[in-house]
Amino acid sequence: MPQKIPTDSIGYVIPQAIDFTEPLALACGRTLDAYRLMIETYGTLNDDASNAILICHALSGHHHAAGFHEGDSKPGWWDSAIGPGKAIDTNKFFVVSLNNLGGCHGSSGPNQIDPATGKPYGPDFPLMTVTDWVESQARLADRLGIQQWAAVVGGSLGGMQALQWAISYPERLRHCLVIASAAKLSAQNIAFNEVARQAISKDPCFHKGRYYDVDDVPRTGLMLARMVGHITYLSDDGMRDKFGREMKTGKLMFDFNPQFEVESYLQYQGERFSTSFDANTYLLMTKALDYFDPAAEAQHDLAKALAHVKAKFLLVSFTTDWRFSPERSREILDALIDAGKDVSYAEVNAPQGHDAFLLPIPRYMDILKAYMSRVEADIPATSSTTAEVEA
Amino acid sequence: MPQKIPTDSIGYVIPQAIDFTEPLALACGRTLDAYRLMIETYGTLNDDASNAILICHALSGHHHAAGFHEGDSKPGWWDSAIGPGKAIDTNKFFVVSLNNLGGCHGSSGPNQIDPATGKPYGPDFPLMTVTDWVESQARLADRLGIQQWAAVVGGSLGGMQALQWAISYPERLRHCLVIASAAKLSAQNIAFNEVARQAISKDPCFHKGRYYDVDDVPRTGLMLARMVGHITYLSDDGMRDKFGREMKTGKLMFDFNPQFEVESYLQYQGERFSTSFDANTYLLMTKALDYFDPAAEAQHDLAKALAHVKAKFLLVSFTTDWRFSPERSREILDALIDAGKDVSYAEVNAPQGHDAFLLPIPRYMDILKAYMSRVEADIPATSSTTAEVEA
Repeated sequence: MPQKIPTDSIGYVIPQAIDFTEPLALACGRTLDAYRLMIETYGTLNDDASNAILICHALSGHHHAAGFHEGDSKPGWWDSAIGPGKAIDTNKFFVVSLNNLGGCHGSSGPNQIDPATGKPYGPDFPLMTVTDWVESQARLADRLGIQQWAAVVGGSLGGMQALQWAISYPERLRHCLVIASAAKLSAQNIAFNEVARQAISKDPCFHKGRYYDVDDVPRTGLMLARMVGHITYLSDDGMRDKFGREMKTGKLMFDFNPQFEVESYLQYQGERFSTSFDANTYLLMTKALDYFDPAAEAQHDLAKALAHVKAKFLLVSFTTDWRFSPERSREILDALIDAGKDVSYAEVNAPQGHDAFLLPIPRYMDILKAYMSRVEADIPATSSTTAEVEA
Repeated sequence: MPQKIPTDSIGYVIPQAIDFTEPLALACGRTLDAYRLMIETYGTLNDDASNAILICHALSGHHHAAGFHEGDSKPGWWDSAIGPGKAIDTNKFFVVSLNNLGGCHGSSGPNQIDPATGKPYGPDFPLMTVTDWVESQARLADRLGIQQWAAVVGGSLGGMQALQWAISYPERLRHCLVIASAAKLSAQNIAFNEVARQAISKDPCFHKGRYYDVDDVPRTGLMLARMVGHITYLSDDGMRDKFGREMKTGKLMFDFNPQFEVESYLQYQGERFSTSFDANTYLLMTKALDYFDPAAEAQHDLAKALAHVKAKFLLVSFTTDWRFSPERSREILDALIDAGKDVSYAEVNAPQGHDAFLLPIPRYMDILKAYMSRVEADIPATSSTTAEVEA
């Protein structure tokens, strides 16, 4: 438990499990008869439910985006951006964050019990697409009584969900914030994902995805997957600044123990991840990334795919991000301009690579805050929130 | 066997094994009492042994750089650059290529028999450094009667050997050609190597490096190592041009079989490599890469480390190479200029990434050929080669 909750924190938060019983037809052709979504909400929904913000998570994210769970010393994964007075101001907005279907943090997914068998779904859990997630999130909005999001916000794989929202449900969001993302993966992106999948699925402890049944975990595969992923989240410059060629022992040891600081760091990150994340979920998330390509259904013309969107857009990229480089954001920018849409774009100078989207970089937070004031201004005038009245 | 040996090929070549019995003291503190080097030579050594070129190989290379082995349909790994009339013209030069110590193609290394035990060295083979290799290559030069190389040439890890030659033996080479290389690895380079090492050493079939004794091979680890390596050898642009998001079946299959062309390609490359390369050698080669840092002994001042070199230099880099980017070659360039040395530098526009250094890119071959005419011009006037007399 933290000694003291910071004053700009939303404080203690409690996840909620929401169960859905209407069958969900999926892109793969299969159907989820019933499913659960784990969510958290921060702030207060106003009377006409017009101040709601949806936060979509990236590959290894989940519903715990902000605040503290009782007993935890670390806050949610985007606490730097979400809270009272922060860029996504919980005094003004009702923020909804969920664990996506197929995740491993309590929503229906491979590590949860399949009601049909009484055992974990494992590899029987269907592969999910970004479109499927948006569909499940739309049902969540229905359940919460939110007809139109003030904004849908996401970074990386989360940005893809935000973009798909604008395409799938043009009337159901006023603003779309796509951060450090891309309209589709490159061959290189897919290649790195495939290395991760091979590392996991060829680990003898993977047991064709049924490792739960034998109380095993493909830890080596997950560790390797995370190590590769982590390198692509950081920039070459950022790694130089952080690790350089610093040696743990100060001299060459001529053995295969970690020698340079960067080796220890990666091993530590990989090993920690391998004990906290589910291997089947990792496989599923990388496939959802690979498959995302909204332009594919519009003759590979992204502007055409975006022709019917109504949301206003903020796109943000980071100079040293080579996983989803600024060039990838500019492809979305160009398509939105071609389609005649309202779009703002910011390229933030940051040495941290793709990871920058999770960090409280001042200019980035300023941009987000400034744009969120536009989102606030677009809340219909008849609305009021309890928090605003108090403020 | 090829239907017909191309007319610009050196033709059939036969490797030679050369045994050394004088102990070799290594950087790690250990000593190799005796060792073997597998070599190939192309062209004819002139009377005063002044037309000899040493070719140093990269991570997965070996002595078979040019020409054909009887029965093979593919030539050596740098046949595009070495042969009669080619950039490194075997009508003019006597070209020497070797498999480095610790390699897995016949030189003393982990997969060769340790005379002390009668079993393969395995993990008992000492870790080698670039400096150790240069020392062994200097002894090879002695054996061949070559007091001074007309040039030492290498790409990638081979370029590091060429650079180290200029530092270790200033009097023993007139020209130094360092292609797509770096004066030291970056933290990112080391990180990718560490992923490869973890993949191999954590493969249950690795048996702590003694897989020969149990007739096993860590194929998954080697496959993963090669897949990661291969991604870093290609450029993002090059992969887009080569694979894009082309699908094998034309539609999404929602399973974990290779879906995109790039996945099949990488798996194929990885699997092929895993049956042809030795895992202990891969570990050793990546460590030699990590450890190379000639400036470290000169207060991390590369210009100082190069103060005593006498060779003239050609540096070549490739625009889309992100493993050893043009910036890394310019670090060597700047240091050589600071040290007042004779250096030419060419940055070749090529979409193929690091792999470009192995390819017959016209401008690259032209640059190499033009520089080699300088190397030829610096052969002492009293010399003559049989080939020159014939020409």
